[in-house]
Amino acid sequence: MGAGMMGTAFTFPCADAGHAVRLVGTPLDDDVIAALRRQRVHPGLGVELPASVEPLPHAALGAALGDAEVVGIGVSSAGVDWAGRALGSRLRPGVPLVMITKGLALAASELQLLPDRLQQLLPEPVRDQVFPVAVAGPCIAGELARRAPTTVLFTGRDPRASTTLGALLATPYYLPLVAEDLVGVECCAALKNAYALGVACVAGLHERAGGAAGAVAMHNLESAVFTQGIWEMQRVVQALGGDPATAAGLAGVGDLHVTCNAGRTSRFGRLLGSGIDLSRALESFAGITLECREILAVMRAALPGLGRSGRILAGELPLLERLAAIALDGAPVELAMQRFFGRRGST
Amino acid sequence: MGAGMMGTAFTFPCADAGHAVRLVGTPLDDDVIAALRRQRVHPGLGVELPASVEPLPHAALGAALGDAEVVGIGVSSAGVDWAGRALGSRLRPGVPLVMITKGLALAASELQLLPDRLQQLLPEPVRDQVFPVAVAGPCIAGELARRAPTTVLFTGRDPRASTTLGALLATPYYLPLVAEDLVGVECCAALKNAYALGVACVAGLHERAGGAAGAVAMHNLESAVFTQGIWEMQRVVQALGGDPATAAGLAGVGDLHVTCNAGRTSRFGRLLGSGIDLSRALESFAGITLECREILAVMRAALPGLGRSGRILAGELPLLERLAAIALDGAPVELAMQRFFGRRGST
Repeated sequence: MGAGMMGTAFTFPCADAGHAVRLVGTPLDDDVIAALRRQRVHPGLGVELPASVEPLPHAALGAALGDAEVVGIGVSSAGVDWAGRALGSRLRPGVPLVMITKGLALAASELQLLPDRLQQLLPEPVRDQVFPVAVAGPCIAGELARRAPTTVLFTGRDPRASTTLGALLATPYYLPLVAEDLVGVECCAALKNAYALGVACVAGLHERAGGAAGAVAMHNLESAVFTQGIWEMQRVVQALGGDPATAAGLAGVGDLHVTCNAGRTSRFGRLLGSGIDLSRALESFAGITLECREILAVMRAALPGLGRSGRILAGELPLLERLAAIALDGAPVELAMQRFFGRRGST
Repeated sequence: MGAGMMGTAFTFPCADAGHAVRLVGTPLDDDVIAALRRQRVHPGLGVELPASVEPLPHAALGAALGDAEVVGIGVSSAGVDWAGRALGSRLRPGVPLVMITKGLALAASELQLLPDRLQQLLPEPVRDQVFPVAVAGPCIAGELARRAPTTVLFTGRDPRASTTLGALLATPYYLPLVAEDLVGVECCAALKNAYALGVACVAGLHERAGGAAGAVAMHNLESAVFTQGIWEMQRVVQALGGDPATAAGLAGVGDLHVTCNAGRTSRFGRLLGSGIDLSRALESFAGITLECREILAVMRAALPGLGRSGRILAGELPLLERLAAIALDGAPVELAMQRFFGRRGST
């Protein structure tokens, strides 16, 4: 479900692992599905679909689900609610669910993992008989579709489901490893977009100061921001009951690293850092989802509750709070390293 | 001591923090010192020395040490033995020693931290009265000398010495944070050059495959290699009695990140990955120290001993072993992600 760049790219290892794949678009994917049916090339990926992938419009979801052995969810984070309702009672009990959608949701002001949210949206009899497996780790869609080597994590509340699915979808270029810390993996996978924005802002600051790209720029500060991002991920993971060490692995360090190399978040951060107004920067992304803004808005809304329960104290996530102010309110791009790594005041 | 890029750049925050600085060259720095005395610009940095920095040839070491309140060591890792002998009995007992030199040494086939080695080289009465403080974290010399924001770690066996020195050398652009895990910090600071080579090799592999630089390359594999580097750092740190969590901080993630952005190691790895022979790649670095080769040689020599004592088992550092074969023996650049993250065979 979902024929965006990542949803479509995910069909490549599925097909190359020997499976027949039905790529069902969301209602927003009608044009993409039409293009794929016509010429078999995704406009965002520029690579021909494997022969065993069949693109289908959302109206065909019911038929596509019929005898499906595995269902994959590749919608945007905002699309999870739609996916849950669309699947509804059509999902066969016991069918494995692979989620490549990333993000955190809010439920009654508390953070909620997307696999949990999806499960909750399913009707009673099905709900307790699905075992969502989340996919995380460094995976740029354009590279996956070009069959460039990619290592990812498969994780869920039932480790057996992760192992089974991992074995089912592995190819020589796509290597799923099983992770046990669903909470940690999902937190890091969601937060990486926020911190990649921070790293990109520094590149923009360097441009704003008149610097050229090159070996000498503001890489020292970029790396401090990157590391502070991992530090704050550890705090959030711990607050939600996961293992902070997960942030040092593929879902944290690995995915943050790859996200800093490419994509919308980097372009957006660079614009803001270089001094472009938030409203003007947003104009160049008209109609396009900026995952960094979504996760920053969710985290900001969740912080009061985390604070009241003492799970995250005021000022413990200075970079995240600052990035929310920058990306949501248009605050100036100032990243005070003096407050990083648990230091309270300025020195 | 030491007027290389980093040794010289380190004088900038020292001077800007209000101190008079004597920059004493090693016997290999005579030309640089002469140039600095003539025109006050380091040929590798291209920035004018602060007014309170006095460049001096190595013959002036004794006089320079006379009333020095702090002594800084900025020689190459191979120069630590020279530094220890040169300081010898001329070092006043109790004087703080700041070490910006990074690396690991071998002593009777065992890994040894450079601050420990330096201390061991000092004569009896002085040895027990110096408290070396090591500096680590993301710090490109060219950026430090341009006063770009930089966060570093100060660490040593006596945390009070780190705190005192950090307060003495902090400036608005140079922020020392105190770390307690000397072993972890020093291991990560040394190993980052090995793993930065791995990441750079992947960029070269992409070029070799005919790919252009850009958002879609082999960034997924680069990030897997980066993360495997952090994973292996954790193993080495643990084996030497440090805290594996240190690898997720500025000395590991932060310094590896910045090292991938610039410098000799990256250029060398890129050449090798793109298919250039080791001997030809080395020609373009004639006479220049490649830290990645030094640490890879040291680690390879130490692995049998670590294995015999059961601290690191055979095959636990597949990336490091492979990089040693690539950079020291000219083995082909093949990075088998199937063996990463503790997996034994190929699947």
